Order: sequence, then structure tokens, then C-alpha cells
Amino acid sequence: MKKFISAQDASNINSLIERALAHKSNPLANQELGKNKTLGLLFLNPSLRTRISTQIAAKNLGMEVIVFNVDKEGWQLEFSDGVVMNGNTSEHVREAAAVLGQYVSILGVRSFPGLTDREKDYSEYIINSFVKFSGVPVVSLESATLHPLQSLADVVTIREIFGTGRKPKVAMTWAPHVKALPQAVPNSFAQWINAWGDCDFTIAHPEGYELDTAFTKGATITNNQDEALANADFVYVKNWSAYHQYGKILSSDHSWMVTTKKIEKTNHGKVMHCLPVRRNVVIEDGVLDGPNSIVVQQAGNRVWSAQAVLEQILKSL
Amino acid sequence: MKKFISAQDASNINSLIERALAHKSNPLANQELGKNKTLGLLFLNPSLRTRISTQIAAKNLGMEVIVFNVDKEGWQLEFSDGVVMNGNTSEHVREAAAVLGQYVSILGVRSFPGLTDREKDYSEYIINSFVKFSGVPVVSLESATLHPLQSLADVVTIREIFGTGRKPKVAMTWAPHVKALPQAVPNSFAQWINAWGDCDFTIAHPEGYELDTAFTKGATITNNQDEALANADFVYVKNWSAYHQYGKILSSDHSWMVTTKKIEKTNHGKVMHCLPVRRNVVIEDGVLDGPNSIVVQQAGNRVWSAQAVLEQILKSL
Amino acid sequence: MKKFISAQDASNINSLIERALAHKSNPLANQELGKNKTLGLLFLNPSLRTRISTQIAAKNLGMEVIVFNVDKEGWQLEFSDGVVMNGNTSEHVREAAAVLGQYVSILGVRSFPGLTDREKDYSEYIINSFVKFSGVPVVSLESATLHPLQSLADVVTIREIFGTGRKPKVAMTWAPHVKALPQAVPNSFAQWINAWGDCDFTIAHPEGYELDTAFTKGATITNNQDEALANADFVYVKNWSAYHQYGKILSSDHSWMVTTKKIEKTNHGKVMHCLPVRRNVVIEDGVLDGPNSIVVQQAGNRVWSAQAVLEQILKSL
Repeated sequence: MKKFISAQDASNINSLIERALAHKSNPLANQELGKNKTLGLLFLNPSLRTRISTQIAAKNLGMEVIVFNVDKEGWQLEFSDGVVMNGNTSEHVREAAAVLGQYVSILGVRSFPGLTDREKDYSEYIINSFVKFSGVPVVSLESATLHPLQSLADVVTIREIFGTGRKPKVAMTWAPHVKALPQAVPNSFAQWINAWGDCDFTIAHPEGYELDTAFTKGATITNNQDEALANADFVYVKNWSAYHQYGKILSSDHSWMVTTKKIEKTNHGKVMHCLPVRRNVVIEDGVLDGPNSIVVQQAGNRVWSAQAVLEQILKSL
Repeated sequence: MKKFISAQDASNINSLIERALAHKSNPLANQELGKNKTLGLLFLNPSLRTRISTQIAAKNLGMEVIVFNVDKEGWQLEFSDGVVMNGNTSEHVREAAAVLGQYVSILGVRSFPGLTDREKDYSEYIINSFVKFSGVPVVSLESATLHPLQSLADVVTIREIFGTGRKPKVAMTWAPHVKALPQAVPNSFAQWINAWGDCDFTIAHPEGYELDTAFTKGATITNNQDEALANADFVYVKNWSAYHQYGKILSSDHSWMVTTKKIEKTNHGKVMHCLPVRRNVVIEDGVLDGPNSIVVQQAGNRVWSAQAVLEQILKSL
Repeated sequence: MKKFISAQDASNINSLIERALAHKSNPLANQELGKNKTLGLLFLNPSLRTRISTQIAAKNLGMEVIVFNVDKEGWQLEFSDGVVMNGNTSEHVREAAAVLGQYVSILGVRSFPGLTDREKDYSEYIINSFVKFSGVPVVSLESATLHPLQSLADVVTIREIFGTGRKPKVAMTWAPHVKALPQAVPNSFAQWINAWGDCDFTIAHPEGYELDTAFTKGATITNNQDEALANADFVYVKNWSAYHQYGKILSSDHSWMVTTKKIEKTNHGKVMHCLPVRRNVVIEDGVLDGPNSIVVQQAGNRVWSAQAVLEQILKSL
């Protein structure tokens, strides 16, 4: 694997899942693989879970990790070619990426969308520039439109809990929030569930919240949350801002919050969320504190998923 | 030891002191103990000495260390139960702590008091939430009302210099400052000296600066600094804001600054301070630059104290 | 080597260069040398290249690294003696440096000039205070007036490309910029090239941009860029603010930008810059994207130069 920025970079999702679960049961079995290799983690936006879980995954493989949180440092990169850089940008990504590529064996990059210019965000010009100019494998730590390390942890969690043999019914439902959030997590979850092909997959959201069909095609899509949740084995809860009326909040309809009552209509459905989650806005306390919530286990699986990805990249170095 | 947030968590202070001094003379004797264990250090407020000394202590024990300085990142945690999180808080400590507990073997937490609501600060709801929800041992890196790693270093320093056989006369004196500071360091020093029981202990402060008797009881308390310092073997200097008129600065009486002249009335008294110290406000230059100051040795001992604590926790994992 | 803050601290530049190139061909040959030693990197100003390259260099030598980015933390140090610290400074460097010296084996410090008070900046009171009070070897990570780790990487790069046998013609040229920048990089490059003695060295800048002769003496100095670049083997491009009219921008003359056309007049001159570089302000796109640019290789060599310096200091511990 030479990059990991989309489900399309995973040639075999089931084998990644198996490796993740193998790392979970034996975290340190591959400590020699990453020895004397360095993972650089570049955060153009803040991160808690991704940063820590990826650091631990890399350490488990024997790698050194260098974190650079540049989101607060006013290190403004230029991404356009041919520009006279007499404004606010102080370094071009051509140099920045190439230099980082001199220093690290694998480069992780986090960068959120601006949510104002859809075409620009969906071009993924930021992470693609690092892929193009760094000269080393690049791992997305969440980009403008996708979050593959999260999605891999999500499918690992579904497999871990549900096992094989039968296709689980997976419902992803929009839920309200007070801020305009990226589509990266729902896009990515949809992309992975579809690419994996091992689920019966439904997406529920209010009208206007249709996601990019590049990621959702193959899923059943409905504006009826009850319908989607009925008999679901897994309920993936997430807010996102509109894709078509780009970055807008079209609804804050409280009735879309996921409640204990709604979960009762599922098939003992396990409730998933990428975290952080606003309690009693997105999901009710009773759900998060009850036996159906697997959000902490899901967050824990971020380590093993990252480890499976790093392992595969290390093997290709 | 399953947590370290108060002197009450130390079942045997003398044995912790002995271990700290043993680490000082042989820092790397226990490098296998923490192998493949991770220490997470969560800073909700800034830290220099505590952060670095604890990192080194953990490394000396073979641990990996992950630092997350979230004080600047606008990661606002919710601590109240049942709240509709539609305001500024983006994650509940129930999730935050539980997820961190998935990633690390031991969790250190620093969190300062607000100094406006005494009851809230003294409930120690922040660090207690991490104890309750993380599922791993929690070490205080200074909480709202206590700073046990500092206090352990303080008693280690007293023992190292004074030896055993005779009880040293220890005077803790309030000194002026320009800002309203927490009571954590003086509370904690008083708590540890009292729990240790190996000192003749006096506390001096201007009227109105009485500390919580939960920590000070057992000590002689006076408003006369000269009296407290007379024949003292150790003079612990520290400013704090008022406990009863909570968080208030009631005095900036310059005559409480610790000067060379005052130290002459002690028994060649060693001068201690947790640092940082404002020179010529809290303590006079002549004292800090003279032979009685042990503040740098005291700060150095932070490493060995943290190492003793982490060692004891690692042994209980 | 007991400190590394100037070319004068390098007793033998050629031997440092040789060691740097040896590390480049065999990065991990000296992994035992730094074992159980800690490098502390204190950033009073931001850093990307220096921070990462020095971290990797130290890891290659088996050291632990602790980074403290205090530039954003409002940790204001006092450097003047005898001051009553009732203002904004909360800790005196006498304590800060001494305490850091308790924690680390080698201390790196980055601190930029204020560019308003030349005498103060050129006294190098900040880094010199750490040298004086820390009690451990201090490495400059760029100080007010010099940047020796950069300059060593620069001479390493020249040697690596040009080999020995003939003196390369090296031209350092001022180029325009939108901000007032320190003189540290050009001062330091001049100091090293002069101390090395292995180059035919010319400096070109507009009138008024004369650097401190303490660093430039020995070099040919001209206001004619064409003259300086003619037949140059290496063109070192850099903006700086005025030394005499201290910190001022006296010119933004676009005609000093380094262009493809200008490079054609050199002897297939290799173009160097310490980065970050503002494209089409300092250097034209065509140069940076063309075969003459060695800026990425030069940045890569920061690792090996830092490793050579740390190695020599470790050997003297």
C-alpha cells in the first residue's frame, strides 16, 4: 500500500480487518517491522483520538513518531501553482511536503474542509498535494471528504461484534448538531460499507442532506429514520452539513436525535459514533450509558485499524 | 496504588521517599517494569516542570509517553450529567475519559481551579471524573486543590538533606504575589507534611489566608512570620489566594517577602519553593542566589518522585 | 564540544562535515552513544525543519527527545538581574535554565530577535543565559543573530555536491520579501563560509543592507547582483532586514528576485535557500522547480548536520 486516503487504497478490506483484530489480540507481535522507521503526523486541524491511536499503533510496530501540530502556529501553506507569494502564505506545499518526505518514512496528514467551496474541498487538493510532493506514503488522518482510518475501525468493530456468516443490517442516520460539520465521516463510512459489501446498508437523513452518490451508491436511502432503524443490527449516528447546499445547516430537527425508545425498535442494535458526541443533542444519555452503545470499543479499535494500515505500508517500503 | 491524587493514596510515605532516592542514585534500574506500557499526560492547563519531569520518570521506567496539551485547543469538556450539550462543550468526560483509558495504561491529568466557586473546585470534579470514567489509574499532575507529585518531591528533598534521626522544623510561609494563585501547593504540602508526621510544622500567613483545615490540622498556625521562621530548618515559601474569601487577594504586604535578613534568623534554614518564583516579590534575589536556596535541587527531585509513584502503580497493574 | 551557538564552537569544520556525511550514509551506526541521554528542545519561537530534523538526529543516536513549544504558552521569562518581577514575566531564566539542566543532558534553544533593539539582540542575552545557567551543553536552534545548525547543513551540502580539490565560487544574494526578517541565517552562513575557508565567497545586496562585518569580513561585498552571480557554483538566496537601520525594510526591489534568467549566467550554479521560501517573491518558480535547485536536499541535510553536532557533544559529556 503506497497511500491510504480512501477505501479504494485498500485492495482487500477483509484482510485489513483480520490484521487489525490480530493486532488487538497481540499488539506487539510485529515490533521489529517498523524499527528505525519514522512516522510523521502533520495536523493542520486538531485531533485527539486519531493522534493518540495512530501514535500507539506506530509505537506497537516499533516506529518512532513525530507529531507536528501546526494548526495553531499560523504556518500557512500555499497550494496554488504560479502564485506570487506576497500575501499570507509563507511556504508552498511543494517545498513543505518534499522536506517532510526527507525526514519521515510515512506521513500522516489531517486537514478539514473549508465548507464554503465544495469543488475545492472535494478536489482534496490538500492531501493530494502531500501525496504528490512528499515522495513518501501518505496516510489520511481525516481529509476534507473522507476519514478512512475511522471507517476501517468501524468495519473492524462490526466484524468483531457480529462475526461472519450473516450480513448485518447497518443503518447510518443523520442526527442534529449545533455546528456545520464536514461530510467526511459519513462519506467514508458509506464508501467503506459499500466497498466491503458485507452489510445490508441503509442511510437515513432529512430531505436535503443527500450525500455525494460517489460514496453512497449501493445503499438504500430514505428520509424515514424509523424505517431505517427497524431491525438494524448496527446504528451509526452522525451529523453532517448539507452536500448540495454546501456546508449549510438545513435542519436541527430534534426528532432525529437517537433515543432509547428508537433503539428499542432495532434488533438489539449496537449504537456507533465516531466521537466526540454532543449528548442529548445527537444521542440521548440513556443510549450512550446503556448496553447498546459500543462507542468506546469503537474508539479503542482505532489503534488496531491504524496498526493494520501502517503494517501494510511498512511492508511495501 | 490505583490512583495518586492525594497524600491519602500513599499508603507509606517513607517507602515512597526511599524508592525516589533509590531511583535518583540508579535511574535506569527498573527499565523493564514499564516496557510496552503507555503513560498519557493530559494537560488542561499549562505545565513545564511537571510535564518534563514526569516524562523522564516514565522513560526511565521504560514506558512510552504521549502528551496531549489540550489547554490551547478549545477542547471543552462537559462534566455535568444530563445536560443538553448544545453550548460550548463538545465532548462529555464520560466519553473522553473512557476513550483515553482505551489508549493508555496510566493517565496523568492537570487541571487548575476556576477560583470563583470554592465548592465546585474543592469537589475536585474534574480529576475525580477521570478517575471514575477512564478505567485506568489516574495520577494528578496538579488538580484544583492538591499537587501530590510536588509534595512528594518536597518531602523527598527534606529527607535527602536532613536525613533521619531528628524531626526538622519546617515553616511554610505565605508570601506576596501579583496574581490570585490556587491553594493547591500549600494545601498539598501541609497535607503531606502532616501525613508524613516527621516534622515540627508551622504555617505563617497574614490574617484571612487560613487554608482548609482538612489539610492543615496538626500544624501550628500563626500570623507572625518571624515567629514561624525562627530556628526553622526548612522555609517553604509560597503565595496563595484566600480560601475563605475564595480566590481573593487580601494582602500584597511586601514585608512578607522572604529576604536574606529573615533567613539569618533561621537555623541555616533551607529555602524551598515549587517554582516558578517571582524574584524580589516572593523571595529576594539574595536568598535565591545564596547558599540556602535548594529550589533547583527540589525541582530536580520531581523526576525521582514521579518515578516512585509510577513504579508503584505499574507494580499494581 | 560544550556548546554550539556559533561557528567558533566548531573546532574543526571539515571533521564535522565528514561526520555529517558519514551519518547520512549510515544513520544508525552510533545508536548506543546517546542511550539513556535526553535532549530537550525549547522553542521560544516556532520551528518546523529544525525541530523535526534535530529530533530525528537525536533518535538516530539513541537519545530520548523532549520538545517544549513554549512560544504559545505565555511563559514569559525574565532575563534582567535585580528586577522586581511584578510585571508580565513569571519566571527568571536563572531558575528556568537551571531546572531544565536538571532534566536533560543537552538543551536546544530557539529564540528569535525582537528586531527593534540591535544591541540587545546582538548581545545574544537569551541563548547566552541558557548557556550560563543551565549547567548542560546548549545547542542553538537559531538564536537572535546566528543559525549554526542551518549553516553546517549548508556547508555539508556544498561539500557533498562539489567535493574537494577546487574552491567553489559561492554567492550569497539578498532577495526581496514582504516581512522584516532576522539577519541570523545570512550572518551565520557568512560566518561559516569564512571560517571554513574553502570557498571563493561573494555577498550581494542593495545599498543599506550591509551585514555586521564581524561575520562578513573576508567576503567580497557588492551591490551588483549580476556581478556576484556570474560563474557562481552556488547561489545562496536569502532575504534579511537592515542591520544598520536596524530591522528596517529598505528595499522591496523586485529586480533582486532570483530568476531562471539570472541562474543562466552562473556556472550551472546550484540554488540554495534555508526555507521556507516565498515563491515568485524571493525565487522564481522556474528556479525552484528546475534542475539547479538543491533546497530540498539542503533541508534533508539538516538531519545529518544536527547528528554530527549532537554526536560531538555526547562524546564530551
